[in-house]
Amino acid sequence: MVERHPPSAALAASLQDRRTLAQRYAAVRAQSMRLVEGLEPEDMVIQSMPDVSPTKWHLAHTSWFFETFLLEPHARGYMHFDDAYRYLFNSYYEAVGPRHPRVARGLLSRPTVRDIRRYRAHVDTAMRRLIENADDATLTKIAPLIELGFNHEQQHQELIVTDIKHVLAGQHEMPAIRPAPKPSPSGVAAMDFIEFKAGLIEIGHDGASFAFDNESPRHKSYVAPFRLASRPVSCGEYAAFIADGGYRRAEFWLSDGWAAVNERGWEAPLYWRHDGDRWTIRTLSGERRIDEREPVCHISYYEAEAYAAWAGKRLPGEPEWELAAVGVAIEGNFLDSGRLHPMADSAHYTPGLRQMFGDVWEWTRSAYLPYPGFHPAEGAIGEYNGKFMSGQMVLRGGSCATPADHIRPTYRNFFPPDARWQFSGLRLAEDI
Amino acid sequence: MVERHPPSAALAASLQDRRTLAQRYAAVRAQSMRLVEGLEPEDMVIQSMPDVSPTKWHLAHTSWFFETFLLEPHARGYMHFDDAYRYLFNSYYEAVGPRHPRVARGLLSRPTVRDIRRYRAHVDTAMRRLIENADDATLTKIAPLIELGFNHEQQHQELIVTDIKHVLAGQHEMPAIRPAPKPSPSGVAAMDFIEFKAGLIEIGHDGASFAFDNESPRHKSYVAPFRLASRPVSCGEYAAFIADGGYRRAEFWLSDGWAAVNERGWEAPLYWRHDGDRWTIRTLSGERRIDEREPVCHISYYEAEAYAAWAGKRLPGEPEWELAAVGVAIEGNFLDSGRLHPMADSAHYTPGLRQMFGDVWEWTRSAYLPYPGFHPAEGAIGEYNGKFMSGQMVLRGGSCATPADHIRPTYRNFFPPDARWQFSGLRLAEDI
Amino acid sequence: MVERHPPSAALAASLQDRRTLAQRYAAVRAQSMRLVEGLEPEDMVIQSMPDVSPTKWHLAHTSWFFETFLLEPHARGYMHFDDAYRYLFNSYYEAVGPRHPRVARGLLSRPTVRDIRRYRAHVDTAMRRLIENADDATLTKIAPLIELGFNHEQQHQELIVTDIKHVLAGQHEMPAIRPAPKPSPSGVAAMDFIEFKAGLIEIGHDGASFAFDNESPRHKSYVAPFRLASRPVSCGEYAAFIADGGYRRAEFWLSDGWAAVNERGWEAPLYWRHDGDRWTIRTLSGERRIDEREPVCHISYYEAEAYAAWAGKRLPGEPEWELAAVGVAIEGNFLDSGRLHPMADSAHYTPGLRQMFGDVWEWTRSAYLPYPGFHPAEGAIGEYNGKFMSGQMVLRGGSCATPADHIRPTYRNFFPPDARWQFSGLRLAEDI
Amino acid sequence: MVERHPPSAALAASLQDRRTLAQRYAAVRAQSMRLVEGLEPEDMVIQSMPDVSPTKWHLAHTSWFFETFLLEPHARGYMHFDDAYRYLFNSYYEAVGPRHPRVARGLLSRPTVRDIRRYRAHVDTAMRRLIENADDATLTKIAPLIELGFNHEQQHQELIVTDIKHVLAGQHEMPAIRPAPKPSPSGVAAMDFIEFKAGLIEIGHDGASFAFDNESPRHKSYVAPFRLASRPVSCGEYAAFIADGGYRRAEFWLSDGWAAVNERGWEAPLYWRHDGDRWTIRTLSGERRIDEREPVCHISYYEAEAYAAWAGKRLPGEPEWELAAVGVAIEGNFLDSGRLHPMADSAHYTPGLRQMFGDVWEWTRSAYLPYPGFHPAEGAIGEYNGKFMSGQMVLRGGSCATPADHIRPTYRNFFPPDARWQFSGLRLAEDI
Repeated sequence: MVERHPPSAALAASLQDRRTLAQRYAAVRAQSMRLVEGLEPEDMVIQSMPDVSPTKWHLAHTSWFFETFLLEPHARGYMHFDDAYRYLFNSYYEAVGPRHPRVARGLLSRPTVRDIRRYRAHVDTAMRRLIENADDATLTKIAPLIELGFNHEQQHQELIVTDIKHVLAGQHEMPAIRPAPKPSPSGVAAMDFIEFKAGLIEIGHDGASFAFDNESPRHKSYVAPFRLASRPVSCGEYAAFIADGGYRRAEFWLSDGWAAVNERGWEAPLYWRHDGDRWTIRTLSGERRIDEREPVCHISYYEAEAYAAWAGKRLPGEPEWELAAVGVAIEGNFLDSGRLHPMADSAHYTPGLRQMFGDVWEWTRSAYLPYPGFHPAEGAIGEYNGKFMSGQMVLRGGSCATPADHIRPTYRNFFPPDARWQFSGLRLAEDI
Repeated sequence: MVERHPPSAALAASLQDRRTLAQRYAAVRAQSMRLVEGLEPEDMVIQSMPDVSPTKWHLAHTSWFFETFLLEPHARGYMHFDDAYRYLFNSYYEAVGPRHPRVARGLLSRPTVRDIRRYRAHVDTAMRRLIENADDATLTKIAPLIELGFNHEQQHQELIVTDIKHVLAGQHEMPAIRPAPKPSPSGVAAMDFIEFKAGLIEIGHDGASFAFDNESPRHKSYVAPFRLASRPVSCGEYAAFIADGGYRRAEFWLSDGWAAVNERGWEAPLYWRHDGDRWTIRTLSGERRIDEREPVCHISYYEAEAYAAWAGKRLPGEPEWELAAVGVAIEGNFLDSGRLHPMADSAHYTPGLRQMFGDVWEWTRSAYLPYPGFHPAEGAIGEYNGKFMSGQMVLRGGSCATPADHIRPTYRNFFPPDARWQFSGLRLAEDI
Repeated sequence: MVERHPPSAALAASLQDRRTLAQRYAAVRAQSMRLVEGLEPEDMVIQSMPDVSPTKWHLAHTSWFFETFLLEPHARGYMHFDDAYRYLFNSYYEAVGPRHPRVARGLLSRPTVRDIRRYRAHVDTAMRRLIENADDATLTKIAPLIELGFNHEQQHQELIVTDIKHVLAGQHEMPAIRPAPKPSPSGVAAMDFIEFKAGLIEIGHDGASFAFDNESPRHKSYVAPFRLASRPVSCGEYAAFIADGGYRRAEFWLSDGWAAVNERGWEAPLYWRHDGDRWTIRTLSGERRIDEREPVCHISYYEAEAYAAWAGKRLPGEPEWELAAVGVAIEGNFLDSGRLHPMADSAHYTPGLRQMFGDVWEWTRSAYLPYPGFHPAEGAIGEYNGKFMSGQMVLRGGSCATPADHIRPTYRNFFPPDARWQFSGLRLAEDI
Repeated sequence: MVERHPPSAALAASLQDRRTLAQRYAAVRAQSMRLVEGLEPEDMVIQSMPDVSPTKWHLAHTSWFFETFLLEPHARGYMHFDDAYRYLFNSYYEAVGPRHPRVARGLLSRPTVRDIRRYRAHVDTAMRRLIENADDATLTKIAPLIELGFNHEQQHQELIVTDIKHVLAGQHEMPAIRPAPKPSPSGVAAMDFIEFKAGLIEIGHDGASFAFDNESPRHKSYVAPFRLASRPVSCGEYAAFIADGGYRRAEFWLSDGWAAVNERGWEAPLYWRHDGDRWTIRTLSGERRIDEREPVCHISYYEAEAYAAWAGKRLPGEPEWELAAVGVAIEGNFLDSGRLHPMADSAHYTPGLRQMFGDVWEWTRSAYLPYPGFHPAEGAIGEYNGKFMSGQMVLRGGSCATPADHIRPTYRNFFPPDARWQFSGLRLAEDI
C-alpha cells in the first residue's frame, strides 16, 4: 500500500468546532504512539525489505505530513524542528522536492527514536496552536487537510503494524509484543453463498463525508448475477489446498504467480512454517500452531487467485463486493481491539455476510484503476493516490490492523499482486 | 504479447472443405517464410532482450504447435522430425512438459535455420496429409484446432516483425530489409473528437466465427458519455510533448512510469534518436528523419498515459473503444501491405474515425482481466490466454504488422505497461 | 578484512601467570566497550553495506569467540547465555556449524544492545573463573587460545571503528562522536626516498611471541635494490592527482580499477565530498575541510596503484616493506590515542622512515597468499586465515584504529582491491 | 584470458626477410580459418556468457589488430574496409577510443560471417603489400609489431576453440566438429614426485626472441626445496576426489571457492555430467564417457586448490614451475594436432617430467602480478598485459588448444580464479 487522501468535498460542521478537531487530533496521534509500546529502539530502525519502512520513519513521516501541508503554509512563524527532516521524511511527493531514497530508509540511525518523539511533540504543539488560533476562514479551508492528515496517519498505523511484524518475524525467535489471545470458541461457521441479482448499480463515494479521491466519482456499473461467500477462507481450508499440492500444480496459477512461487520458493502463506507434520504461524503474540478456523492471511493476490481456481470459484470484483457490503454494519476485529491478528468468527452469528469488515483485507479481481471521471486534486496532494494506478490490485474491507473509524464500504486499498506482508486474505465468489 | 487462442465454438462449413483448409494452411505458412526474406542466418539467431525470440525460434515454435496439438494426437504414425524439438520449441505450456528456458533462446545455434526450414517442410507435409486423409469425424473435431494454429501463426508473424526489428535496430547501422516507402501526401487531418452517448452496451465476441477465448463471453457493460479522437496521436504531436519537457516533468506520469523513465533513461519513443536538433527513427527500411504526420509508435503504456495527461485527455477504455469500432470497416495499413511501418493518413478521408485498424495498436486504460463469466479451455490449450491475465494492459485495433484477416473489433491484445517494442501508439479520449 | 589468528608457538611464562592473563583479558574487553561510548542503540544495529557489521554484532561475536573456543570445550558446566547465539554470532566457521547469513546481520533487532551487554558480562564472568580455576595443564594448553581471543577482539575493535564510521557517514549530517582534534603544526615534511640494497633476506615471524598463522613460516626472499618513501602520501598530494584528471584518465588504472571508477562513480577517496571549489572530509569528529598534510586514507588498492602510476612510482612489495620496517620503533597514532583519524606528521622529526606504524594501513603490491611452507592450524581455528588467501591484497603497518600492542613488522592485513572503508593509504616505492 | 603482447627487444634477422615474414603471416592467418571449418554461421554469432566472444568477433578483432597497429599508421593510403569496424572490433584499448560493449558482442548479427571473411581478405591484401613495399627502415620498425600480431592472433586461436566449445556445449546435443580420437593405449603412468633443490634462481624472459612484456624482466627469485609431480592430475584421480565428497566438504576450499561451489552448484568440472552411475564429458568430438587416464581439465583455480588440499599437496609457484620446465623439450599435444582435447600420456615415456607443455594449462599458486622492474610499453600497446595485473592467477605450459610455436617456459597465462572454460588442469607439488 501507499498513502493516499484528498480534499473531501463536504466537511461536517462539527469538524469546524475547534475543540472536536483538537480532540480528534490528539486521539489519532496518541494511537500511533500506543502502537509502538513494547518495541525497543533497535526494532524501530530496521527496514527488513524495500516495502517495509522503519517504525521511526512512520512516526516521523506522519508528522512531516502535518508540517508540510498544514504548518508550513498556514501556521504563521512556524519554525521547523530540523530542516533536514523535510528531505528525510518526504515519502514520494515529487512536487515537494527531493527526498531520501525509499530503499535506504533502514540506513538512518539518526535521527534517533528519541529525536523523533521530540519532533512529534514539536509538531503537535504547533498543530494545537494552529487549530486554536487560525481565523475562521483559514480553519474552514484547512479542516479538510487536517482530516486528510488524520486518515493519512491512520493508514500509517496499519503500516506500522504490518511493517514491524515483518521486522520481528525476521528475528531468530519471534518476540511477542502482544499477549496471547484467548482461544476462540470451537467450530467455524459453514461457508454459505449469498445470491445477488444482476443490475445497473452505482458504486463509489457520494461525497457526504470524508473519503479518499480514489473512491470518487460515484458512477454506474453493471453487475451480472453472482454469489458471494458468507465468510473469508479459513486457515484450515487453505491448508487443504496446500495439502492437495496447491503450490506444486501449475494449473491453478496465473503465469506471473507460478513464476513467483518458483523463484521465491513459496509453499505456504507468509509467516507459516512447516514444523514436522503441522504448520506454525508467527504472530505479534509469538509463534504458535495455526488455528484452522481463523481467516487465512498474508497471502498474495496470486495465491488468492490460485486458491479460488482450485476451489472452482473466483474472486469478487470491486462492484460486487461494494454492492454486497453496503448494507452490512461496520463491526468486527479492528486495530482498536489490540489483537493485531484475525479471529475465527463465532459460530453463533446469524446467517448472512460475516467479517466483511476487519480481520483481513479481501483481494478482489479488480485492477486498481481510476473510476470513470476521476481527477486527482491539484498540487502535491494530487500525488496521494492517482499516480499509483497501475500494476496493483484492489483489496476491500479493512483488517485487524485498520482503525475502525477509518474503513467504509467504498474504501479501496491496493497492493501489487505479489505483496504478502499485509493482512490480506480472500472471500470467494461465483457466477450464477 | 504472448500467444493465445481457443476452440472457437462454431466452425464455418467452408473450413471443413478440405481444399479450402489446405489452401489456407499453405497461405498462412508461406506468409511466415516471406517475412524472413532478406534476413541473414546470423540475424535469425539473436535474442536481443528477454522479450524477443530469435526468428528461427518463431519459425520452429509455430511448427511445434501444429505438431503437438494436431499431428501427435491425430496423425496416425506421425514421426517426429526430432524428439529434442518437443523440448526446445515449447513456449510456455506447463501441461505439455518441461521446455528450454525462454531467456536462453538466443543461445541455441543448433538447430540451424536450414534445419528449421526442413522441420517446417516435414510438418507441412504431415499436415497436408492429415487434412487430406482424416476421416470426417476427426476433421470436424480438429478443424477448430487447425484454425487456432492459423491464428497462432499469425500472432507469431507479428512477433517475427517486431522481434527482428529489435534485433536489427541494435546493429551499429540499421540494415534496411524493406524498400523505403514513397513519401506520403503532405498534411495531416485535424484531430476531431467524435461523441458517443452513455448506455448499457454489450461487448465481447458473439461466437459466430473464430475468436480467442479471451474475447468471450459477450457481456453487458455500462459506458458513460465520452468522445474519441478521430485518429491516433502523430509523431509531430508527440514531439511537442517531448519539447515541452514531457520526459522531465513528474506531474504527467504514473509513479511506475516515472521510475521507468529515470531508471532506463527514456527520453523519446523506442527507435527515436536525437541527432543534433532533430529526431531520427529506425525503421525496417533503415534510419531516417521522423515523419511528423505518422502515428507515433513504439511507446509504452506509461508514455501513452503521460502524453494523455499532458494533453488534458485520457486513454479510452476497452468498452469505449469496442463500441466505437463496431461500425468501422476493417481496412488500413496491415502486414499485408509489406510496409511494416505506420503511415500518415491521407487528409482526404471523410470525417469520422480513421485508422482504427492497422498502423498502430492503441493502448487502452483497461487492465487485461477476464471478462465476467470467462472460462479457459480444458487441457494445455487452456494455457493459451487465461494465465496471462495479470499485470498487463489491453491494446486494440491491430498494427502494420498484423495480418489483415487476423483482426476484429473484439480482439484483445495485451502487454505489460513498460513494453515498447510492439507497434504500439495511442488514441485520445475524453469525458463529456 | 576478516578475522584471523593461530596458536602462537611460544607463550611467554608471564601469560601463564593467571593474574596477568586476567588483567589483560579485562583490559582488552573494556577497550571494546569504550569504543562504543557516544553511540545510540540505533547506530549499533545498522549494516550500511555487506562488508560492514553492526556494532552490536561485533560486541557479541567477540564474546562468541571466547565462548566457542574456550568456554564450551574447557569450562566445566558452562551454561550458554542463549543457545541461539551460537548460530547468530558465528562469523564464518564452517566447522562450527551453520550461521546467520552475513548480509542479513543488519536485520537483527534482537538481541538488543542491552542483551548483548549482558551476554558480554556473562562470558566475562565465566572467563574470569576459567582463568582462575583451570588446572595448570589446562591453562597452559588454553593460554594460546586466550591470547588468540585477545588479538581477535583487537581486530574487531578496528572493525568497530571503521564500520561505525561507515554507518555514521551515511547519515544526513555526520554526527561527531569524538572531539575535534587540535590543529596540527603547519607544514609537512618533504617526501624523501630511502635507499635499500639488494639481498636475500628473511621475512615472516620467528615465533618468539604471538603472531597470526599467516605471518609464518619465516622464509627467505630475494629483494632487488629499491627506495621507499619516508612518509605516506598526503591529502594535498592526492588532491593534485585528482586535479590532474586522475579519476578521468584510464592510462593510470588497472582494468578492474577503471571499471570500479566508472561503475561506482568514484571521483575521490571515500568520505571526501566536493563542496564548491574545495574538498571536505567526513571524520568521526564530524565533517570538515581536508587537511592537506594528513596522510590520505580510505582509498582502494586500485586508487593507490593509480596514484603511484601517476606519480611515476610504484607500491612496495611485502618483503620490501618488512625489510624497511624491521628497525623502526612501533610508535605513532594508534587506536589508543582516541583520535580515530590519521594525523599530519610533525615536520620536526629526524630524517628517515616516518609513520610506518599507525595512521594508515599501507597497500602493498603483494597479493595475499600463503608463505612458502604455510600450514593452517587443525580444526575450526584453522579457518581463521588460510581460507581467505585469494583475491585480496596485503596491507602493512596498522592504522589510527589499530591497538598499539596489536601491530608488528610482520603483521599482514588483507582486503579486496576495491575495499575503501578501512583506514587505508599508501607509501610510494621505486626501483633503483 | 585476455590478450597481451609487447615489443620484443631483439628481432631475428630472418624476420626482416620479407618473404619469411609474409609466409609466416599467411600461415598464422590461415590457421585461424581452418579452426572454423565445420561451424555454421549460427554457431559463430553466439556469446554464451560474458567471457565468451562470438567466433566471428575473434576473426574480425584479430584483423582489426593488424589494421589499427600496422596498416593505419604505416600503410600509405590504406582505406578502411568499414569505418564502423574500428568501433565494433576494438577489444579493450582505451587509448584507441570507444568500443562496442564486451557483454553485447553476441547482439551483433551484422557484419555477417561472410562480411568478416571479406574483411580478413581486405586486411590480408594490405598486409601483404605493406610487407612487400615498406622501406627497410619502416620494416625494421614494424617487424616487432607484426610479430606481436602473430602472437596476438595465436592467442585468439586458443580462445576461438575454448569459446566455440562453450557455445556448442550449450546446445541440446553437443555437435561434434572433430572426429573422435582413437582410444589411447591402456594404463596411465604412475605419478612420481621429482625433487628440486633450493636456490636463488633467475626466471623470466631473457629477450633473445619474442616474448610478451609480462615475462620480463628476467629477475632473481629464491626457491625453497620442493617436489613436482611427474604428470598432471588425471580424470580418474579427480573423480576419486568427487567421490570422496570433494564438492561437499568445506574444509578443502578457499572461502571464495566454497561460495562459488554453492552459488553456482558446481559438482564436477565444467562439461562433466552425471549420467546414472558414471560421468560423461562433452568434447569437440561430441559427448562420451570420461577417460580416467586423461588429464582433468576445465577446472577453476578454486577446484585445483581444493583438489591439492584434499590430496595433501599444493600447487606449484611460478618460479618452481619455470625452474622445472627450463630443461624440458617443448613437445606434446597442441592445437596443431587437431585433437582439441587433452590426451592420456603413453605409459612408455621415460621417467621424469611429462606433459609440461600442451594438453592442459596448469594452475599455479602465483597471483598474476608484475615482475620486479616491469614496465608496460608506451601507447596503446602498453595496455596489452599490464592493466590486467589484478585479481587473476597464473597458468603455465599451454594446452591442446595452444599453437606449438606459441608456448615457452617463461609464458604466463592468467585467468580469474573462477574461470573454467579454458583447458585448465593442475599438477601437484609439495614442500620438502
